[in-house]
Amino acid sequence: MTEPGAETALAVSFADVKAAARRIEGKAVRTPLLSSPALDQATGGKILIKPECLQLTGSFKFRGAYNRLSLLSAEERRRGVVAFSSGNHGQGVALAAKMLGIDAVIVMPGDAPGIKLDNTRAHGAKIVIFDRQTEDREQVAAAIADEQGRILVPSYDDALIIAGQGTSALEVMEEVSDAEITLDAYVVPAGGGGLMAGSALAIREFSARTLIYSAEPENFDDHARSLAAGERLANAPDAPDSLCDALMAPMPGALTFPINKRFVTGGLVVSEEEIRAAVRFALSELRLVVEPGGAVALAAVLAGKIETQDRVIGLVLSGGNMDVAQLCRIVAEG
Amino acid sequence: MTEPGAETALAVSFADVKAAARRIEGKAVRTPLLSSPALDQATGGKILIKPECLQLTGSFKFRGAYNRLSLLSAEERRRGVVAFSSGNHGQGVALAAKMLGIDAVIVMPGDAPGIKLDNTRAHGAKIVIFDRQTEDREQVAAAIADEQGRILVPSYDDALIIAGQGTSALEVMEEVSDAEITLDAYVVPAGGGGLMAGSALAIREFSARTLIYSAEPENFDDHARSLAAGERLANAPDAPDSLCDALMAPMPGALTFPINKRFVTGGLVVSEEEIRAAVRFALSELRLVVEPGGAVALAAVLAGKIETQDRVIGLVLSGGNMDVAQLCRIVAEG
Repeated sequence: MTEPGAETALAVSFADVKAAARRIEGKAVRTPLLSSPALDQATGGKILIKPECLQLTGSFKFRGAYNRLSLLSAEERRRGVVAFSSGNHGQGVALAAKMLGIDAVIVMPGDAPGIKLDNTRAHGAKIVIFDRQTEDREQVAAAIADEQGRILVPSYDDALIIAGQGTSALEVMEEVSDAEITLDAYVVPAGGGGLMAGSALAIREFSARTLIYSAEPENFDDHARSLAAGERLANAPDAPDSLCDALMAPMPGALTFPINKRFVTGGLVVSEEEIRAAVRFALSELRLVVEPGGAVALAAVLAGKIETQDRVIGLVLSGGNMDVAQLCRIVAEG
Repeated sequence: MTEPGAETALAVSFADVKAAARRIEGKAVRTPLLSSPALDQATGGKILIKPECLQLTGSFKFRGAYNRLSLLSAEERRRGVVAFSSGNHGQGVALAAKMLGIDAVIVMPGDAPGIKLDNTRAHGAKIVIFDRQTEDREQVAAAIADEQGRILVPSYDDALIIAGQGTSALEVMEEVSDAEITLDAYVVPAGGGGLMAGSALAIREFSARTLIYSAEPENFDDHARSLAAGERLANAPDAPDSLCDALMAPMPGALTFPINKRFVTGGLVVSEEEIRAAVRFALSELRLVVEPGGAVALAAVLAGKIETQDRVIGLVLSGGNMDVAQLCRIVAEG
């Protein structure tokens, strides 16, 4: 697929994903691969579901955070860490830090879902609130790192974070490979593209023919447009908010995009109503709480954005941190 | 623990559970073993959760049903099957029958949750409704078996069904044994006692010291009373209905009870309010839809019915077939 030697230009390799898998073993949950007769019936295909909403802290983010933090030196651990996050990366960093005895500060937007603020606090992290409209979270976090000497833990543009997120798809590929199943396609929610990039590295190692797609909400379709254009394009700064608070990164990452550009087939875009329908489907048919941002790949498959008839398709439910009152409001609308 | 040779008197052995595990491999989901920092914090222990709500058809019942139906002869398969069930066993039988190309009739009470009726139908089974107040479901099913020549598939009092249900705890014991963890206790929801009996066989094979408990709703505490008395005692025929439609069997099974009597430590009983709290906890903290009957073991642990401080405790979430509107009503009460 790629020119010889071309892979050396990427920030992360499959070997890094394998190494991350060894580091998180026994720390992260090895999430299952689920089937649903109802989903197969709705799509005409065989859909394999990787529910990262069942990961510790309720999203895949714990994988990358633990991988990153476990490699800090003793001196770095003493200095502590700081991360910025709408909530899922923050929870992942907070729990990984707690497990490793590291002090953590998480910079979060004031309008993050209450459950994400509460859980981040419950994992023992200090929270610093910033105003998403008037402040730059990267600058707030960088200032804290500077002033307090903390290590900044990026949410996606970091080789160890990307490698850690890739362990999810590595588990999927090991399992389907053992069962002698070939995936026709794999669909991954994309915010900054870290899960996407790690997943793509793992999938391509096992299968050259699996089509790989990002899934995004409308107005935050930067991966779809960037993949089509072959260069990083930003979302409109004045884009209306999405239900998908986890997927509102401004543009594809500097480290993630070259990986995704090489391996990802294209980007799927779903409407807010298609996302709500997927959240309802996950609850009633899969018996899982999946937050809107975690449900975009399911939404894309349910809404027929790719061919599913007689295809074997893997998809990731990337997170489940959602206030149950909001969940029940979405259910009531259905 | 037991006298030499005593085990030969039981209807099922550990070898039967192992054989069932081989039969269902690649057919049933190997459900994960989940951890929850929130649950550990709430209990002071290390709680390992076996979410059978993620099994095909939304409960452990598929395990026993597939094990039983896969061993029917070609002639028996042609005759078709009939089962009676409040819904979970019926769904398990319906899907296993569909996968094996067998015609199925399920006898269900008219007041079964709508989702259970709908899903059983969706798996292609014919449904026969009976009146729980005036008709005996066993008689209705036996009459259909007689008239139509179908094989009756009991919901718990059957060696192959019990062995199949035991594969859930076998998976748990293999996993904790690989991780060199010893369970101090294991808690299992009990209706007719099939999951309980199969689980007890698997647990005792690995660990003589793990305390094994049934969990039941008040008014349907037949296992707790029977285990204490050493003989099968029935629930009051006029007991008020429980939220736990899956656990309203009249008394411990004739085949299940001798197994449970030998291996199970005792019975835990929880109130309807403790069950509602567990359903809410599962949704908001574990991100899982767990039906009331599936949540009684979690309810017992959350309500402090056994010592949890510094203990390692396994518990089963045995099913998740619940109308989401009812789920959201329970959430709103919390």
